[in-house]
Amino acid sequence: MRVIKTVKEMEGVAKALRRSGKSVGFVPTMGYLHEGHLSLVKAARRENDTVVMSIFVNPIQFAPGEDLKKYPRDEKRDMELAEKEGVDILFIPSVKEIYPRKNLTFVEVKEITEYLCGGKRPGHFRGVTTVVAKLFNIVMPDRAYFGKKDFQQFKVIKKMVEDLNTDVEIVGCPIVRERDGLALSSRNIYLSEEERRSALSLYKSLILAKRTIESGEKSVENIKNRIRDFIFSFPHVKKIDYIEIVDQNSFEVVEYVKEGDLIALAVFIGNARLIDNWVVGEEL
Amino acid sequence: MRVIKTVKEMEGVAKALRRSGKSVGFVPTMGYLHEGHLSLVKAARRENDTVVMSIFVNPIQFAPGEDLKKYPRDEKRDMELAEKEGVDILFIPSVKEIYPRKNLTFVEVKEITEYLCGGKRPGHFRGVTTVVAKLFNIVMPDRAYFGKKDFQQFKVIKKMVEDLNTDVEIVGCPIVRERDGLALSSRNIYLSEEERRSALSLYKSLILAKRTIESGEKSVENIKNRIRDFIFSFPHVKKIDYIEIVDQNSFEVVEYVKEGDLIALAVFIGNARLIDNWVVGEEL
Repeated sequence: MRVIKTVKEMEGVAKALRRSGKSVGFVPTMGYLHEGHLSLVKAARRENDTVVMSIFVNPIQFAPGEDLKKYPRDEKRDMELAEKEGVDILFIPSVKEIYPRKNLTFVEVKEITEYLCGGKRPGHFRGVTTVVAKLFNIVMPDRAYFGKKDFQQFKVIKKMVEDLNTDVEIVGCPIVRERDGLALSSRNIYLSEEERRSALSLYKSLILAKRTIESGEKSVENIKNRIRDFIFSFPHVKKIDYIEIVDQNSFEVVEYVKEGDLIALAVFIGNARLIDNWVVGEEL
Repeated sequence: MRVIKTVKEMEGVAKALRRSGKSVGFVPTMGYLHEGHLSLVKAARRENDTVVMSIFVNPIQFAPGEDLKKYPRDEKRDMELAEKEGVDILFIPSVKEIYPRKNLTFVEVKEITEYLCGGKRPGHFRGVTTVVAKLFNIVMPDRAYFGKKDFQQFKVIKKMVEDLNTDVEIVGCPIVRERDGLALSSRNIYLSEEERRSALSLYKSLILAKRTIESGEKSVENIKNRIRDFIFSFPHVKKIDYIEIVDQNSFEVVEYVKEGDLIALAVFIGNARLIDNWVVGEEL
């Protein structure tokens, strides 16, 4: 595995790969890798000649007061996991490499970023789309892999690429869960053992929603109330950031749930803001 | 000369050119070609194996009430001129090709777009940077050529490309003028014969500014006043949109003029909004 730390070197390697005709699969991450990230590498490995992973904790996608400073990092472990999983090129630039001077340019997707996490985290998606646009220009991948735990992020990036005619195929991969159902997240490290048990309320409430819908309930209000009551029945639930049932493309709220709609949750358990989701009709 | 009307075909050709290792020079235009555009083609011709020109009147860079509908067009003449000048590929997409569905994604350069034309034409530069980002993704050029009559546009695109790590070299080309000094513009067609004479006030006022500075005047206020009085001494001057003397990189106003500063004008002569500029110390 080749480790690259500068934009210039990465650009040179990317160009050489392009010229050689080898396909490149790209897995952009913020590091602190878990099986979710590694499932993206596996997918990229299957579908491309070369796999590039980036690790970059992108400051401009954190809103003021969020966990930028304490976001977990373990470069040594990440390098071992990436290498073991078959990553060919690991791109780990510094903040100064990615933002060498005052950045004035932003890529922004409107409307679908105003809901869910976009509504709750001002500037978050603008930071995500801007850095992803930059990384795509640097790495020049054929395909890029995103986890569907961040379902809205996946859709926002897909829309960005469509709108800007970017020559990258966006591949969404299923949520990876612990044996008991907890969606993998680098932020799970923030949880105490007790909070970890309460964090399971997200997944369990999705199961509850699934059963409720299967039993014939269609009212979004009723389903959301059931989810809310269920989550609040757990200790350490500091705040429900949102529980929403929305159209999976427009992210606009619906009144009656139907197949393909997205049930999305964001809950503060202790100090960790955790998210989870289920697309109605899909496996859970 | 190959004429291409669809994004898909242009993308295919661009990819094939990339693979072949041929360098591509790109001249994006809104058509109604004049010697200014053709000077860009000449520069592209000198420095690249293949020259691609696009003609696209981009609706999203016109503010409401501007001249989108009456913007001059002459596809047949443009094709002849482009071919004669040695353009290899002419890309003329329809609006539906470039915006096939509701566009939600915008590329925006902040701060330096708030001055001059950016301040006067809300959304203009956002429209320009968005369509240029799209065209760069479609055409995949090595170099792209812009006229310095639109000096701010040239700098904004240069900044966009730097900030987003876009692999395109931005080349700025000198203003092309009529024999009497009028800067070439597709919008000159809006001028009556009498207005045409008044339009010369822009160039002549820059000459006046040059002489004033050469005589030792440094006060921006004094220089601007001289320009204003001079321009208003012509008939058909409907409105001075702005007369500004700014730093050529930050576009912030300066108090005392120095070499490298930009003197920029926008004036309504009759119904035509004309612009012109001079970088202090350069040829005029």
